[in-house]
Amino acid sequence: MAVNLLPPDAAALLSVPGVELGFAAAGIRKAGRRDLMLMQLAPGSRVAGVFTQNSFAAAPVLVCREQLAAGTPIRAIIVNAGNANCGTGEQGLVAARRTCAAVAATLGCSAAEVLPFSTGVILEHLPVERIEAALPACKAGLAAANWAASAEAIMTTDTVAKAVSRSVTMGGATVSITGMAKGVGMLQPNMATMLAFIATDAAVTQEALSRLVREVADLSFNRVTVDGDTSTNDSFVIAATGRAGNQPVDGGADYDALKAALAEVAVHLAQCIARDGEGATKFITVEVGGAASDAEAHVVAKCIANSPLVKTAFFASDPNLGRLIMAIGNAGIAGLDTAQVNLYLGDVMVIDRGGRAASYREEDGARVMKPAEIIVRVELGRGAGRATVWTCDYSYDYVKINAEYRT
Amino acid sequence: MAVNLLPPDAAALLSVPGVELGFAAAGIRKAGRRDLMLMQLAPGSRVAGVFTQNSFAAAPVLVCREQLAAGTPIRAIIVNAGNANCGTGEQGLVAARRTCAAVAATLGCSAAEVLPFSTGVILEHLPVERIEAALPACKAGLAAANWAASAEAIMTTDTVAKAVSRSVTMGGATVSITGMAKGVGMLQPNMATMLAFIATDAAVTQEALSRLVREVADLSFNRVTVDGDTSTNDSFVIAATGRAGNQPVDGGADYDALKAALAEVAVHLAQCIARDGEGATKFITVEVGGAASDAEAHVVAKCIANSPLVKTAFFASDPNLGRLIMAIGNAGIAGLDTAQVNLYLGDVMVIDRGGRAASYREEDGARVMKPAEIIVRVELGRGAGRATVWTCDYSYDYVKINAEYRT
Repeated sequence: MAVNLLPPDAAALLSVPGVELGFAAAGIRKAGRRDLMLMQLAPGSRVAGVFTQNSFAAAPVLVCREQLAAGTPIRAIIVNAGNANCGTGEQGLVAARRTCAAVAATLGCSAAEVLPFSTGVILEHLPVERIEAALPACKAGLAAANWAASAEAIMTTDTVAKAVSRSVTMGGATVSITGMAKGVGMLQPNMATMLAFIATDAAVTQEALSRLVREVADLSFNRVTVDGDTSTNDSFVIAATGRAGNQPVDGGADYDALKAALAEVAVHLAQCIARDGEGATKFITVEVGGAASDAEAHVVAKCIANSPLVKTAFFASDPNLGRLIMAIGNAGIAGLDTAQVNLYLGDVMVIDRGGRAASYREEDGARVMKPAEIIVRVELGRGAGRATVWTCDYSYDYVKINAEYRT
Repeated sequence: MAVNLLPPDAAALLSVPGVELGFAAAGIRKAGRRDLMLMQLAPGSRVAGVFTQNSFAAAPVLVCREQLAAGTPIRAIIVNAGNANCGTGEQGLVAARRTCAAVAATLGCSAAEVLPFSTGVILEHLPVERIEAALPACKAGLAAANWAASAEAIMTTDTVAKAVSRSVTMGGATVSITGMAKGVGMLQPNMATMLAFIATDAAVTQEALSRLVREVADLSFNRVTVDGDTSTNDSFVIAATGRAGNQPVDGGADYDALKAALAEVAVHLAQCIARDGEGATKFITVEVGGAASDAEAHVVAKCIANSPLVKTAFFASDPNLGRLIMAIGNAGIAGLDTAQVNLYLGDVMVIDRGGRAASYREEDGARVMKPAEIIVRVELGRGAGRATVWTCDYSYDYVKINAEYRT
């Protein structure tokens, strides 16, 4: 059950000029369930992406990296749910390339212009023939208004589709941005998340777009964790069709404005993922300040957000807050002076200079542990480094979902 | 429910000349439950210990380090369960020192000769007066044969007491070794484990004993993980009373023989902890070979052993084995050539040169996932580095135990 998360309002999602989406039920995940999504990009679109740092990067990730490095303009994105095409060796690479070729034949472009993405079970061979069979239906349904239904077609253990739009005015033109993402387990993206796609009609230079995708990933998907396990298939792609009529963005105020709008979309999607984390009953924001650097703050925040003991305490709404200091202490921060550490749960001070705050009362802890949304704030007293991470709790359902994942 | 783990046979545990143990129900953990253990060491005993690397090391850990560094011979060890005396600031240090003073007054030694240990809830003040009130009962019951009952008195979420003995002949004398340990959550010891005590009547130089405690910890407690959370109170101590009449051990063949026997005891206790890991239904041995170094193999083994997705798959006996390659890929091994990686589950080859083995059949995976004891073997194909790690699965009961820990 997702935490304070409703499906996107299809009517409120902005179409992005130059982008059309189609979907189909290819029978890869479950019979009758939409599990294939095709995004067609108008000629002249630019695409940039960031991908998983897992050593066992999946075959489609390897093919995406190769196609993007070659510099051929991208005309289509194809995504299947239900099979990750990972741990599939040479046969997996062949399957990913055959998928690109099938899309190219369907749309009348070249295979080098197609980026393939897969999500689902690892170590099973991709049934490419089912993708081939379903592509005509994807093509027939291509439409600019299909964002909400397409976001549904890429889900695996997600319970709610994730999509959002923003628009921003720059250089005399109004630019639309719409993005979709899916999660929601094996999720601690490192460089990008398990399948997120954002499209905009902004005109952007390729160099600026490549910078944008990295910087936006660092502000959004790289700050969310469900279980600390980094997927083999994490991919985050921004496509810019250039149809808005703005002066191509290459830096300066326009870059900042576009980055801010893209980051808003990406942060929203990243938070959606934590809200819909496998088995989630709580949405938890961990803010760490006073660190020697932003990177150090990030390490401490992740240590708290990934501790199974912290997460089960949140599930129980039990202010067993000693677990929070255990988690901070495990971050491996050399020379951490615990006597400088303060910690707040919501508005309640729990740790005062490394020890239990004299003002802390168990009933205050119980009160702030109760809501479905909880903010943990840590001050390390070492410097000005800051970071925020979003996560969820560990419930019986996390175990249930992952024990029964393939059944 | 612990995995293939019976309580120690009290009659089979060797008394260690120079060591007497007593226990009491002090009312710190639960009314009527034994939760205080006193170990008295004969004059001339040597003690060495290793402690948690958590920055928020508990007050008793700080006091132990201080007392051991001072070099005063140790005459007593006092352990309470139910309260960790951690995150308790200056008041916690005062409480730990007052505990030492109370033991000293009871036994007629000095406070500097007492090592204090605590395990239980973090961030609550230690009720020292309950320890003081229960010390006379501990003293009255002091006996050399009390190992089994004392191992019970240090348990928290443990379901089974953990103790074992070995004897070894060296330099013409037969040496006895008996050890006890407790776990079983917040458990990924780093340098030592959450309370393990081994005593021997061997004569050992202080320098050799200090080396032994570190080397034995690395072979045993540092190789077990339940949930990847390193406790604030981890402590592993070896006491050597020197009563066996052997030539004091300072190196050479005697050192190796004593180390091997101590390691046997420590490995047994470490495996007991994984078998009794919170909510455990499976005991899992992860062996990694072919690494560039032993340290690299250890990192990969821990990555597998700590992955919530791997652990829930084991709980379900579901051969969702792609999660194993995800976990290997997340170990952050620079330049890992996944095409060299092989993986076996029991006698079944699952991954052959980075991909699904052609010979792998789902029914073989299901067969080897079924038993309560499972061996995962990984070959990285990079060198001769090896490491073994012991862990358990993640079950509903892990969530239940930790959601309800304080109730």
